[in-house]
Amino acid sequence: MCPKLASCYNWAMKVSELGEFGLIDLLAKMISSSQDKKLALGQKLILGIGDDAAVWRGDTSPQLASTDSLFQDIHFTLEITPWEELGWKALAVNLSDIAAMGGVPEYALVSLALPESTEVDNVAALYRGMIEAAQQFEVAIAGGDTCRAPLVSITITVLGRAQSQGGNMLTRAAASPGEKIAVTGALGGAAAGLEMLKKGLQFDPETTAELRRAFLRPWPRLAEGKLLLARGVKAAIDISDGLVSDLKHICEASRVGARVEIERVPVSAAAKAGFGERALALALGGGEDYELLFTAGAEVVEKVKETISCPVTVIGEITAERAGEVVLVDTKGEPFYPNAAGWEHFAAR
Amino acid sequence: MCPKLASCYNWAMKVSELGEFGLIDLLAKMISSSQDKKLALGQKLILGIGDDAAVWRGDTSPQLASTDSLFQDIHFTLEITPWEELGWKALAVNLSDIAAMGGVPEYALVSLALPESTEVDNVAALYRGMIEAAQQFEVAIAGGDTCRAPLVSITITVLGRAQSQGGNMLTRAAASPGEKIAVTGALGGAAAGLEMLKKGLQFDPETTAELRRAFLRPWPRLAEGKLLLARGVKAAIDISDGLVSDLKHICEASRVGARVEIERVPVSAAAKAGFGERALALALGGGEDYELLFTAGAEVVEKVKETISCPVTVIGEITAERAGEVVLVDTKGEPFYPNAAGWEHFAAR
Repeated sequence: MCPKLASCYNWAMKVSELGEFGLIDLLAKMISSSQDKKLALGQKLILGIGDDAAVWRGDTSPQLASTDSLFQDIHFTLEITPWEELGWKALAVNLSDIAAMGGVPEYALVSLALPESTEVDNVAALYRGMIEAAQQFEVAIAGGDTCRAPLVSITITVLGRAQSQGGNMLTRAAASPGEKIAVTGALGGAAAGLEMLKKGLQFDPETTAELRRAFLRPWPRLAEGKLLLARGVKAAIDISDGLVSDLKHICEASRVGARVEIERVPVSAAAKAGFGERALALALGGGEDYELLFTAGAEVVEKVKETISCPVTVIGEITAERAGEVVLVDTKGEPFYPNAAGWEHFAAR
Repeated sequence: MCPKLASCYNWAMKVSELGEFGLIDLLAKMISSSQDKKLALGQKLILGIGDDAAVWRGDTSPQLASTDSLFQDIHFTLEITPWEELGWKALAVNLSDIAAMGGVPEYALVSLALPESTEVDNVAALYRGMIEAAQQFEVAIAGGDTCRAPLVSITITVLGRAQSQGGNMLTRAAASPGEKIAVTGALGGAAAGLEMLKKGLQFDPETTAELRRAFLRPWPRLAEGKLLLARGVKAAIDISDGLVSDLKHICEASRVGARVEIERVPVSAAAKAGFGERALALALGGGEDYELLFTAGAEVVEKVKETISCPVTVIGEITAERAGEVVLVDTKGEPFYPNAAGWEHFAAR
């Protein structure tokens, strides 16, 4: 390890104190300092750790790869998530990472860990859901691995390619001051769905169905990611941790600030129907909506709106000041501090 | 799901009753029946579930991908496996799958789950070991994912390519009657190392060091896999489950039988030094040696021996009779029944 790295970390620290993003940062530094120019493959690597997907130069177009795990009792519980929905969601959240790059997914590898007492019927349901998503988004399940474990976990790696030979991609690091911040669809539905299912809340059938769908059947914005890229958008991320937290990722990677007008944030109608005023906090911090958050000049955003099939809402602006920070303002332009602003997987809760 | 599939499985069965290989078989059938000819990518898929790696047609050469998970208290314990060795091994076992195809590994994606109480120092050691293996075998760690979980688990996906544009590969399904069965290196060292570490046994320093290395620092036979392919070998597998169990995989995939003369099996000298007569059982059933087991005509095996840098031993012959079965015979040609013959991850032990 490089001596610089060794001196800037307190190695006796626990992972929970360092936090998920601190840990990723450390590991990324260890890896990049090891992959120097001697390694031919290192030179072919366009984007390593730190964006939605890894990217390297393929023979004719850049190749994308992304991996994500769902662990029982961390990312899902079997009390709330039926097996078939678990299968759909496990693949969908990975496809969402490819969508956030504007890429085209091609193959999926599935590593599945199961307790020995799992019923085969349930495993089959899991695969039915996964196969349904694979067919919907034209991905081939190419292989995988199964093993026993005390709890269910599913790790999926999705491989894909850039749309064009030139290999433009949406990245977190391409936002510029003066650009508009925009988001597809509506936010807060997934977090509202989770809370509804967890607490066993009863809403009208339409609200219930929509909140279930938002949490259990996220729809990766693959078509929209391709369209953003084609219309000239350069910076995007998918909303998995939460609007504020994911926007902060863009700000940090692009070394810019962000100013979001909270009354412009498109809050899910079903989340409002179920949770009233709390829906805004769910939209800002809840996460798992898997909508695309992007930045672009006003004209590019207008061009996107003309052709995209889902709502696109401008919610604020990228600023040169306060790099790495997200400032929320209310209708009067006063700073607004939400209660929940995304979460980190390792942070003690 | 196809009605044929629905009728041939007892869906109320537990995963432990179906067994790991039964489960893989079921999932492979579900997936292949879903990926019909409508899907262009399905047509590009050369090998799906059921071999050491998945293979599909790339732009200039076939692409390989393989995924494998190591779970705490299932595949390793932290009492026995130091963090740095865990990192090495997690990558090495994946590279071994690419070696068993005769392929060239290129990129690795790492999905790491950790308890919040893990010390950062230990995570850094894990990555040091992984990076060491990546540098040794010229693989770029392209990305990954971290999350918290009650136990440590590491899922790695390795991407690679076939050596040649023509895209020959070593597969499990290419063995023919009359071919010799051969194996690289020596067997039983990894299982002996595990037992030594588990029971805290004391041997002479050389034996101890070699058994530790065999279990904790497996060496993927990448150079050897390439050479086998170049010399005309067609069928191979890496020994992860155990000699008998992995040879059975070749027999089933190739619809042939196998006859192994147990006195010809190259047993690790260190395993013999530590465990005497029990070493043979460890070599036959212990697994995790990550040597290559292959079949080829006698002349091809001779050509391999001339140029390969490790020992290669012929241990038996592929037969047309008793397809799918492995018959062990002793010096007198009498059938031999070992106590341990590989294990299945889901089988109750």
